[in-house]
Amino acid sequence: MRRYLLMTITLAAALALASLAAPAEPLPSWNEGQTKRAIVDFVKRVTTTGGADFVPLPERIAVFDNDGTLWAEKPMYVQLVFALDRVKALAPAHPQWKDKQPFKAALEGDFKTVAAGGEHALVELIMATHAGMTTDAFAQVVKDWLATAKHPRFNRPYTDLVYQPMLELLAYLRANGFKTFIVSGGGIEFMRPWTEKVYGIPPEQVVGSSIKTRFELRDGTPVLVRLPEINFVDDKAGKPVGIQMHIGRRPIAAFGNSDGDLQMIQWTTAGPGARFGLIVHHTDADREYAYDLQSSVGRLDKALDEAKRQGWTVMDMKQDWKRIFP
Amino acid sequence: MRRYLLMTITLAAALALASLAAPAEPLPSWNEGQTKRAIVDFVKRVTTTGGADFVPLPERIAVFDNDGTLWAEKPMYVQLVFALDRVKALAPAHPQWKDKQPFKAALEGDFKTVAAGGEHALVELIMATHAGMTTDAFAQVVKDWLATAKHPRFNRPYTDLVYQPMLELLAYLRANGFKTFIVSGGGIEFMRPWTEKVYGIPPEQVVGSSIKTRFELRDGTPVLVRLPEINFVDDKAGKPVGIQMHIGRRPIAAFGNSDGDLQMIQWTTAGPGARFGLIVHHTDADREYAYDLQSSVGRLDKALDEAKRQGWTVMDMKQDWKRIFP
Repeated sequence: MRRYLLMTITLAAALALASLAAPAEPLPSWNEGQTKRAIVDFVKRVTTTGGADFVPLPERIAVFDNDGTLWAEKPMYVQLVFALDRVKALAPAHPQWKDKQPFKAALEGDFKTVAAGGEHALVELIMATHAGMTTDAFAQVVKDWLATAKHPRFNRPYTDLVYQPMLELLAYLRANGFKTFIVSGGGIEFMRPWTEKVYGIPPEQVVGSSIKTRFELRDGTPVLVRLPEINFVDDKAGKPVGIQMHIGRRPIAAFGNSDGDLQMIQWTTAGPGARFGLIVHHTDADREYAYDLQSSVGRLDKALDEAKRQGWTVMDMKQDWKRIFP
Repeated sequence: MRRYLLMTITLAAALALASLAAPAEPLPSWNEGQTKRAIVDFVKRVTTTGGADFVPLPERIAVFDNDGTLWAEKPMYVQLVFALDRVKALAPAHPQWKDKQPFKAALEGDFKTVAAGGEHALVELIMATHAGMTTDAFAQVVKDWLATAKHPRFNRPYTDLVYQPMLELLAYLRANGFKTFIVSGGGIEFMRPWTEKVYGIPPEQVVGSSIKTRFELRDGTPVLVRLPEINFVDDKAGKPVGIQMHIGRRPIAAFGNSDGDLQMIQWTTAGPGARFGLIVHHTDADREYAYDLQSSVGRLDKALDEAKRQGWTVMDMKQDWKRIFP
């Protein structure tokens, strides 16, 4: 009996070792080719103990843009759809919006006029819909909206329209000791309510744009109130600043898809030792969208030039991905 | 041979299991008593699967003030000593400082005049010594200074004057699945170069005050330049704001020692479920320092009152700690 028990434990140990030795093939939704090879080679180099490019565990930091890199950003940034829906939901309490831009245009679904208002109009919409409540209340509003809103083309919840190959990439990096962060131009508190469930990325590993908050005691209960004042814009040259502020050390791998990610990838790849920069190039109008130089959302121009100059990996969605969404 | 091998593996497995089953007694530098019992009871409650107070792993967030909670803050904040030493080191390049306050006083070691200048003088000293260089250069300056500077009373490097019982507490919490963060009024970039080595807290888990930075390409090389402009003050009502900004969810345990930590502990303990707040009361003039109500550095007044009202644990350094420093 005792011997049987010992052998059972031994067998269990052997199986455990075997599962360590032969993990499932990584990145199943990625086609074989240059891009997948570049990713796997980089991970092997930085995780090979004793190798020239070995990187200790705590320094294995990978940063990912969100819109257009981890989930779809077309035809409109999801957060902008949210803001426009919120304008509609809040309109009964703001009768003056019917005659006031950019709210009038937002209520009429006239996105051209909203867009024509530029950054100023956008900020007005964001402040009217994202501020003036506690952080807890805002998180609930985001969750409630995501539970019902659907993408106009794919007719699925937005959190379904994350890229399956990127989910596998996040998991593959984490299995190799990486800490994965989001570094997005989008609102930090718009992402945090769902990134842990959808991407496996906890709130403390989300970097994004933000408005200011203020601590208050309301009837003795502490709250954080969201104020209609910009705190930080985590885009373009702001991304390395956001990385330093939140992470405090330079990543070794960065993944983006637009000119907004240029400086993040420059900052990441300029460090010493092995570095990896990747651009997601949207080339698949049939399964998703095709856009780059001329696009108003997710414009990819300077970063594509720089990728060629610097030898960053440029991923081709049509060629490199077997499937797009889960 | 084969059987011998099997038995060896089995023995190893058995030993591994035994070491899991009987961990070393936690918190060896803490005396038995109410404080230690309160800590251990809390940790047991939130880690007992199926228990009423069980907290899932990702939500086990603990935040620690730094100055006076994790390391000594007397007779002067270490970062202020650093700033004054930097004024001396930089003085040859700034001959005008000899006749200009607060630099004149700093150079003459006249701390009373520096202190009389209040926050304005302090900010001037910080900007003159902490800005105008890249983030990488500043981190190196901090490391170099800490390698040689010594505490005037204990004649040891400042990073030796961390509290041994708190090092054990950090390790104990982490062994129980907690993620440990620093939330300090001190400069975030003054702490990050050494917190990982000294506390086991990586840079991305350090929250603190900051100045602004700007991304630049210098001869094609990306740098982050530290600017003489305040970005965020992570003290008092700023601490819950800093927690939300960096961590994005409410901690379940908070450890502080002064009125600067009041709102952080309020915010932490006001959440639902099991919560823990602890105040380090400096009561040991022989082995460290004794101060509270009247102290200019680390004043503990309102937070002590609130601790009594709210039932937070008030630790007594003299009674609760077997030893102070490692």
